[in-house]
Order: sequence, then C-alpha cells, then structure tokens
Amino acid sequence: MVKRSPHFSKLQANYLFPEIQKRKQAFLQKHPEAALINLGIGDTTQPIPPFITKRLVEAAKGLGTFQGYSGYGTEQGNVELRKKISEKLYAKRISAEEVFISDGAKCDIGRLQLLFGQDTTISVQDPTYPVYVDTSVLCGKSPDTIYMPCTPENDFFPNLNNLPSTNLIYFCSPNNPTGSVATKKQLQDLVDFARANHSLIIFDSAYSCFIQDPSLPRSIYEIDGAKEVAIEVGSFSKMAGFTGIRLGWCIVPIELRFSNGTSLHQDWFRIVSTFFNGASNLAQQGGIAALEDRGIEEIQQTIGYYLQNAKMIKQTFEQIGLPAYGGDHSPYVWVDFSPKKSWEAFDELLEMSNIVSIPGCGFGPSGEGFLRFSAFAHKSEVERFKWALRNSPQSTQELTEKN
Amino acid sequence: MVKRSPHFSKLQANYLFPEIQKRKQAFLQKHPEAALINLGIGDTTQPIPPFITKRLVEAAKGLGTFQGYSGYGTEQGNVELRKKISEKLYAKRISAEEVFISDGAKCDIGRLQLLFGQDTTISVQDPTYPVYVDTSVLCGKSPDTIYMPCTPENDFFPNLNNLPSTNLIYFCSPNNPTGSVATKKQLQDLVDFARANHSLIIFDSAYSCFIQDPSLPRSIYEIDGAKEVAIEVGSFSKMAGFTGIRLGWCIVPIELRFSNGTSLHQDWFRIVSTFFNGASNLAQQGGIAALEDRGIEEIQQTIGYYLQNAKMIKQTFEQIGLPAYGGDHSPYVWVDFSPKKSWEAFDELLEMSNIVSIPGCGFGPSGEGFLRFSAFAHKSEVERFKWALRNSPQSTQELTEKN
Repeated sequence: MVKRSPHFSKLQANYLFPEIQKRKQAFLQKHPEAALINLGIGDTTQPIPPFITKRLVEAAKGLGTFQGYSGYGTEQGNVELRKKISEKLYAKRISAEEVFISDGAKCDIGRLQLLFGQDTTISVQDPTYPVYVDTSVLCGKSPDTIYMPCTPENDFFPNLNNLPSTNLIYFCSPNNPTGSVATKKQLQDLVDFARANHSLIIFDSAYSCFIQDPSLPRSIYEIDGAKEVAIEVGSFSKMAGFTGIRLGWCIVPIELRFSNGTSLHQDWFRIVSTFFNGASNLAQQGGIAALEDRGIEEIQQTIGYYLQNAKMIKQTFEQIGLPAYGGDHSPYVWVDFSPKKSWEAFDELLEMSNIVSIPGCGFGPSGEGFLRFSAFAHKSEVERFKWALRNSPQSTQELTEKN
Repeated sequence: MVKRSPHFSKLQANYLFPEIQKRKQAFLQKHPEAALINLGIGDTTQPIPPFITKRLVEAAKGLGTFQGYSGYGTEQGNVELRKKISEKLYAKRISAEEVFISDGAKCDIGRLQLLFGQDTTISVQDPTYPVYVDTSVLCGKSPDTIYMPCTPENDFFPNLNNLPSTNLIYFCSPNNPTGSVATKKQLQDLVDFARANHSLIIFDSAYSCFIQDPSLPRSIYEIDGAKEVAIEVGSFSKMAGFTGIRLGWCIVPIELRFSNGTSLHQDWFRIVSTFFNGASNLAQQGGIAALEDRGIEEIQQTIGYYLQNAKMIKQTFEQIGLPAYGGDHSPYVWVDFSPKKSWEAFDELLEMSNIVSIPGCGFGPSGEGFLRFSAFAHKSEVERFKWALRNSPQSTQELTEKN
C-alpha cells in the first residue's frame, strides 16, 4: 500500500488532552459523586447575544427562499464582511482586499504552511499554542523549531538579542496560554527584529478583543513597518462566541513579498481557492451582525463577563499566595506552581478541589510548573472554584507549601 | 524575505474561470442588452426546502439560549450526523466511527494530501476536477500525473490494461465534468486493479445522489474489497443545496493500512484535529435534518428538478445532432463539438445564443472539443436555453456543420 507521510514520525505525540481526559475519568470513577469544576479547555459557554442570533435566524430563513438563497460565495469571502473587518477591527489600516475570510484561525494556520517550502525555519514563543509546531512538522518543515522562552523573568517577551534568525516567527498576543499581552514597544522591537533578519511574523490575534487598555496593540498592524513583515490571523470564536459556528480571517498585506519578489497575497489567494471553499454563508452573516454597532455592544458585554471570571480566578490564586499572570486582557490565567511539576499540581487540584486545569508543560518546556485556567465558564462555576480553593485550607496549604 | 514554496512554479496557471469571466465581460460590453443564459458553473440555485430550513432556523435560535448553545464540537463531527450518514447513505457498510464530518469535499481532498509523502505518485481521470492535481502539486507531489483518458470510445472508463500503477488513483463517479457513471463491473475492475497494484483509490462521490438506477453503485464501498483500498469523500453541497452552508464528509475505513502497517484512520484523525476545527454546528444540524425521512424526501425533489433540467439540455443537443453524454444520473451534460476546439465552440455559443458553458479542455487534454453544461439552474433558464438553440437555425447550422 501507499507509504505514510514521513512527517508523522517527527511529530510529538499529542498526549495533553487525552491524558487530561484519562485522569478526569479515573477521578470520576473513584468519586462518582464529585461535581468537577471545569476551567480547563478554552471553549466559550455564553449564548450568542440577541441581535447576532436574530441575524443568524434571518439568514437561515432566507436560505429557504429564492431571494435569500445563496450557493458558493466569492473565494475571498463576503465583501461586506471584509469591509467591516477592515473598518471596525483595523481602522482601515488594512484594506478589504487584504482580508481573507476563513472557517477559523486554526484552519488558516494550517493552510499558511503551504505558502512556504520545507526548508523554512520557524520560531515560536515558549510556551505556545501547539498547532503552530504541529502543522509545520506535518507539512515537512524541520522539527528543529526555535523555542523562545517567555517567562515571568522576561515579562513573557522573548529576549531578541540572543535569538537566532528564522524565516517565520509565530507570535500570539494576548498569548495562549500565558495570558500575557505584548506592549507597543515590545511589538515594535519584534517588527524591527523581523525586518532586520528578513523574517516573516505570523501574528495570532485570536484573543485581541480581550484587550481593554487602548495603549496596548490589538493588531500587529498598529506597529510601524508591520505590513511588510507580517501576516495576521484573527477569529470570531472567542470574540463573538463563534467556536461552534466557525468564522475567522487572515490578513495578507499587498506589500508582502517572497525573497524572489513575488506577491504572497497572490499565492495566498491561490491556496485558499484551491484548498478551501469559503466559510459558511450563515457564519458570515452572523459575522456581519457582530461587527455592526449593536453587535459590537453585545459582544463587548460577553467579553466583559469572561474578563470578570478571569479577574476572580486570578485574585483567588493571589489571595492564597500563588503567583498568577495574565487574566487582565485575556481569558487565560497562568499560575506558577513551581517547584511542583505541572502534572503534580494538576493532580492535587483535581483530587483536593475537583478543579480541572491544563498542565502548562503541554505548551512547551517553559510551561513546566505552571497551570492554565480558562475564564470561559459560567460565573457559577468560577464561584464554585473560588469557594473550593478558599474553603479547603488543607488544599491551599498543600498547593502552596513548597512555594 | 522568506522563500516561496517551490511547488507554486510547478502549478499550471488556472486560466479557465478567469478566461470565461473575461470573455463574458467582453461580450456584455459589446451587447449590453444581452441576457446571458448561464449553464456554466456548477452551483446550486434552488432554495433549501422547508423541513431542513426549519431545522437550520431552530439551530440558529438555539445558539441564543443556554440550553441550545454549543461551542467546539467533537473533532470527528456530530455523532448523530455520523450515524445518519452510516445508516442512510452507506446502509451501515461503513460505521459511524469511519465517518469524519468536514466543511466540504474540496477541503477534504486538500487535507488528504497530508497523509502521503512527496514521492507519492497519482493517476486521475482525464478529463478531471482540477483540484486533485492542484492540491497534489502544491503539497509537493510530482507534477508527472498519469492522465487516464475517459472518452466516448472507452465508455468514459479508463483502460486499466495499459495503466501504469500509481500510489493514488483519484476517481469521481458520477463524474465531473463528463456526467458519466461507472457501473458495478467497472468499479469492481478498478478495485481489483488497486488491490493488485497496492494503490489507494480516493473516490469522490459528491454527485452520487443523482444516481437514479439502483443497479449503479453510489459508493465505492458497494464493491467487494473496497474497504481495504479506498477512501471516499462525499458532500451535502449538491445533494442538499449546501454549497454555501458548507458540509461534507470523508470515509476512512478502519482496515486501511500504510505500507508500514500503520493505520490511515488514526493518522487522518490527527490531520483533521490539527488542521481543522469542525464544520459549523449550524451546517451539521441541517445535515441531520436532510438525512431524516422528511429531509430525504425533500432533497430528492430538488434532485429530480435538476435532473429534469439535465434531460432537457441533453435532448436539445441530441435534437440538433450533437453527441451529448451524461445528464441521466448526473447534473452535468458533456457535449462533443469536435473537430471544433472547446474555446471555439464556447465563443460561438456565447456569440450566437448568449449561452455560457465551460470549455472541456479546462479539465484535461481529453476534454478538448467538448463543452460542459450544468443543470444547476432555474428551469426558466433551461427553457430559454432550449428556445435559443432551437430557434436560431443559423447557430444550429454553424455549431453542427463540421460534425
């Protein structure tokens, strides 16, 4: 039979989520009465708000009529949606022509691999969203990825002075999993580094809507010179609760050039029109509504709700004396349990307080000793979490004793 | 800057649709009053029927409530939908575990490339859907594709006796663009050939719902031994009018093995969970409705409507003396205008009767001299087409004179 792609064998086994699942199951078997407090997976829980829902309903009804029915959309996505993204999310720094609508940031991250040859070298933040590395490896790029440590010691921003140059630099801000947000100065340094080293930044802004401080950049294109060195992927998943509806976008500036002088924008158009057939027309109508004034008001309320959760999670850990990061402009709180190992801390929290988290070591070597907590939960869940941690002195003592 | 993937330069420029667009525009500039009769692109035109629309509307409303909201789905897709596909479309020949839900057949065809290494060799029917070759080339596979001529002379089925063996064989039945359907005997020969040559068949059944004769196979898995040598991609696009809603599936049997003995099913799970994040939950609810009894009745009515169009298109050409193929179990009619070249026939039809078609040469060398006509149109459009061809004796004479 046909040969297996040789790249599978270079892939690190994906133990993180299966292992969490296994330990959860084992715990529930021992304690069938336990009500778990799930702050692990980063999946939205709040319903789609009324104005956006109404538009989804209208779009669905419309598909049942001759006037409202639509088949294949244009390759690059609904032009009204592209204009809205350009205006409302990029203040027209980016033109509608540079916006490509997709079924989500993860899918775009995978497809972007096809722009580049196998000898392309990459750097990622450490800890990092595993999909950057996994899609690179599965597309035949070298598994010798440069991991750029991002820890409390360097304010979660890589030390660019010591950094070897690579063709691609993946950068996510607000970061998954650390919840840290790069400042304008930091991103300017990153763009300058990319320009000096002829690197291309793939900037993941999937969590940018959580940034509350207007002085913090929500897009790499707020930085001078970024349009010549950066692609950006964005998403309606966390912004508008579209994790299940599926809608995202990718910005490929007209200015971007390969080393031979040809246009990335043109090749990206070819990739999406060959490997993709458009996001659902229903999702795209919902996206348009989400970027109208009433939609924006609605999604800001939901974002505020999750940020309240994040604040409560962070404060709870701080009150029991554990260093907690992120959570201010991000739905993720990143808690330092060192010198405990991540899995050790995970087990203790599960056993003593029924809390499910994500072990930081699953995101890269610099995540060891940390756990990630997600604010995507019902408020009552977060209140149970607070109660469980505060009212279980034994667990608090255990958790913090080596710190 | 970063180097361009070397595979772009091996790709044939995609002139077909841009060139059609250009000629249409030029024609409309000369004849601004002309009402074009569009039988070119294979895009559905009939609204989603009431029962399925109702479910889409309910699903959209549900997303606005705590009870009905859902975030990320399971990686492989909604289990109810997978069961329905197993039962209603595969008569349980395929288990729900072997069904992977996707956002469409085209997207799966692209992602399937990632299972195989760059030294994988491929064969395609000639003429063929261009995406098989384009995705192969862009993923670094050899552009030295074997084209298997499929013409009226061989009943549109490749001559397997002379065929060099390749690792992958792409096969589409009912075929796009020829509208031909392989018989059970023909598909058995294909499966036997694949087994003897250790080839894997990638079977595209996107148009299987148009098969009206129960003795013709709707799936490769109706053939003995196919589960050991075939992957199948399917789609709700043409079956249920979901071209814009986006929903498809891919069958990867548990039995399938790479040459090293490992499981394709397991690697495919890894590919979809790394490069994809699920089809829209709205689309999946619509798909479940489409496969309930009332949904099936509704989609059969729409399929019948398109097949009536196909019949009328085919008969019209036969009546003016042009050999026409397909159209009986397929929405495509494939008409032989040779010794005219495809583009010449395209221009004449456009100029004399305002009819837009697709030049067959755009689908491969054996398509030269043919035009493809699509039955995805309003009936009134097809009636205008019939009128235009029948009542334009000059055009009829011109079109057929060299035949």
